Amino acid sequence: MSKEKRTTLDQIGEFGLIDRITKPFAHYHATTVKGVGDDAAVIQINDTEHLLISTDMLVEGVHFNLMYAPLKHLGYKSVVVNLSDIYAMNGKPEQITVSLAISSRFTAEAIDELYAGIRKACDVYGVDLVGGDTTSSLSGLMISITAIGRVNHEDVVYRSGAKENDLLIVSGDLGGAFVGLQVLEREKEVYKSNPNAQPELEGHDYILERQLKPEARKDIIQFLDELGVRPTSMIDVSDGLASEILHICRASGVGCHVYDEKLPIDPTTYSTARDFNLDPSTCALNGGEDYELLFTIKQADYEKIKGSPHMTIIGHIVEENAGIYLIDRAGALIPIQAQGWNHFDR
Amino acid sequence: MSKEKRTTLDQIGEFGLIDRITKPFAHYHATTVKGVGDDAAVIQINDTEHLLISTDMLVEGVHFNLMYAPLKHLGYKSVVVNLSDIYAMNGKPEQITVSLAISSRFTAEAIDELYAGIRKACDVYGVDLVGGDTTSSLSGLMISITAIGRVNHEDVVYRSGAKENDLLIVSGDLGGAFVGLQVLEREKEVYKSNPNAQPELEGHDYILERQLKPEARKDIIQFLDELGVRPTSMIDVSDGLASEILHICRASGVGCHVYDEKLPIDPTTYSTARDFNLDPSTCALNGGEDYELLFTIKQADYEKIKGSPHMTIIGHIVEENAGIYLIDRAGALIPIQAQGWNHFDR
Repeated sequence: MSKEKRTTLDQIGEFGLIDRITKPFAHYHATTVKGVGDDAAVIQINDTEHLLISTDMLVEGVHFNLMYAPLKHLGYKSVVVNLSDIYAMNGKPEQITVSLAISSRFTAEAIDELYAGIRKACDVYGVDLVGGDTTSSLSGLMISITAIGRVNHEDVVYRSGAKENDLLIVSGDLGGAFVGLQVLEREKEVYKSNPNAQPELEGHDYILERQLKPEARKDIIQFLDELGVRPTSMIDVSDGLASEILHICRASGVGCHVYDEKLPIDPTTYSTARDFNLDPSTCALNGGEDYELLFTIKQADYEKIKGSPHMTIIGHIVEENAGIYLIDRAGALIPIQAQGWNHFDR
Repeated sequence: MSKEKRTTLDQIGEFGLIDRITKPFAHYHATTVKGVGDDAAVIQINDTEHLLISTDMLVEGVHFNLMYAPLKHLGYKSVVVNLSDIYAMNGKPEQITVSLAISSRFTAEAIDELYAGIRKACDVYGVDLVGGDTTSSLSGLMISITAIGRVNHEDVVYRSGAKENDLLIVSGDLGGAFVGLQVLEREKEVYKSNPNAQPELEGHDYILERQLKPEARKDIIQFLDELGVRPTSMIDVSDGLASEILHICRASGVGCHVYDEKLPIDPTTYSTARDFNLDPSTCALNGGEDYELLFTIKQADYEKIKGSPHMTIIGHIVEENAGIYLIDRAGALIPIQAQGWNHFDR
C-alpha cells in the first residue's frame, strides 16, 4: 500500500469507489452478458433465457436502526430490496441466498423473527431460499442477500436503452420512505430524552410502511407485459429519483427533462414533509428507498399506458447536449444532481 | 418476539441455527434442484447443465485479523473460499459478486489492495467479477462473496452419495492453516507487548501461506475428471475434517472409519504443532480452513487413483450402525465429534 497517498472514502464516494475497483477486471466467460453497472448481472444460461444476479448488503446503524425497525419487517425489507433489482431488469426472481453476521446480543428468538420476515417475503413473491452463510459479528447485524432471477433474451431491459423523445415514467409515488424515516428519527429522539413518552406515529401509517416494509413492483412488470409495453430502459429507485435519472442518462448517453409538477407525491408524504419544513419535491427527488420502478418507453407506446394507475409520466428523454434538468413550476431549468445516499459522507 | 424464551446463539451453535431457520421454507420453483444443505445450491438452467451458487461472509475480528492478514491476501482468500465450494460440487466457477461493508478508517488505497487480491484470484481461477454492493460500516470490514458455477447434470456430486465400502479420500494435507494461525497469533501477542520486536516467521512459509493465502483445489477436480473417476460424495474442508466427515455421513446415512496414521500432515505442520504442544492429528481433524477436498469413491475406482499425488485414502465408509470413528495407532475406536468453528461459542 502506498504510504504517500491516502484518499479517504468520503473524498471519492460510493460510485467513485465502485468505478475505481471494478474497471480493471477482465472477463473470461462468454456466458457473462453483463457484469457490473446495472441493477443485476446478466448471465447466459440457455437459448431463450438469461439468469439475473443481484446482491445487497444491509448494515445495522447504516441501513437500519433496530430501535424502530422491527426484526420481522427488516427481514422482509432485506429480501424486497433485492427482488426490486431483478424486476428492474424486467425479470422474475426465483431464488435468494441469505447471509447473516450476528452479534451475541441477539437471541435465537430474535433471529427467528428476522427469518419470519424473510419467509413472508419469499411466500409473497414466490421465491426459494436456497442457501446462505451464518456467522458471528463483533458488533451489530449485517444481512447480505443475493437474488437470482430469469428473463427471456428479448425482454431484458438495461439502464442504457433510453432514446431521445422516450417518455420517462415512475411507478407509485415518491418520497414517502424518506419522510417516514424522519418521523421515526423524531420519535427516537423523543424516546431517548423521555423513555416514558408515547410515540406519536398516528396518521403516519402509509409513510411508515413505505420506510419499514416496502414492496417491490412485481405488479408493474406483469402489468407492462400484459399491455405489451417493453420499457427501453429501467432502474429501481433505491438511492433516490435524481440519482437514478442520472444513471439512466449516463448509461444511455442522453439528457432528460423532468417536470416538478408531475412528481407523484402521496398527500401524507406531502403534509408530513411540510410539518418537517422539508420541500416535498426534494424528498421525492433525493429521498431514496422508494423501490419504485423508473423507466422509459417509446412515445408510440403512450396510448397503451395512458390512464393506467400506478404509473406517472414525469418527463421525457432529450438529446445529451440538452442536459438533465428539473423544470420547476415557474418553468426554470434546475440541473439534476445526485444527492442519493453517500454512505461514506457522514 | 416471545418475552418468555431467550435462547442464546451459543446454546444452539451455527448448525443448530441453520437447521432452525431454514426448515420452514417452501420451494416454489422446479428449477430449484437443491437448496440449503450442501456446499452450493443447485439450479436447473438447461438440458445439460446446472448452475451452482455458493456464498460466504467474512467478518473482521471473527474470520480475519488485519494485524497480520495483508489486505491483498485477504481479498485473494475471500474469493478462494467461495470457489472451493463450487469445486466441492464437482463444478467449475465462472462468476463472482463481491459485497463490502467498510468503515471510514479504510482509505481508498487500502480497498485497492483488497481488490488487487480479488482480481488476482479472478485471474488465477478464470472467474468474472459481475457485481456486488459497497457500503459503509460503523466498525470493521465485512466481505460477502457469492460464487456462481456450472456442472453437467451427470457430474454434480452431493454430500449425500457416500455408500458402504466407498473409500474416503482427502486432497493435499491438513492442519497447516490452523497451525499457521497459531504462529500469527503468537507473533501478534509478542508485538502487542513489544512493538519493536521482529516477528519470528522464518521457516513457517508453508503454514503461513496455508492460513493467509490458501488455494482451492481446481486441479483435483480436473485430475479426477481426466482419470475418469466421479466421487460418490464430496465436501470442502472449511470447518475441519471431523466436521466435514460428519456432514457426509449424516447426509449419506452412513458411518465411517478413519485411520489416524493415514491423516496427511505436512512435516512443517507436524513440527510446529509439537512446538505449540498441540497434537498434530487434532490439528488435522479440527483445525479447519484447509480448503482441501474430502470425497468418497467406489472401491472399483481404486486402481485409477492408486499412486496419485495430492490425494490420500484416509478411511472407508461403513454402514450407519457401525458408527463414525477415528481409529488410533493402537487400534482404539474414538468417536469423531464436530469441533469445527463455532463462531457463537466464545
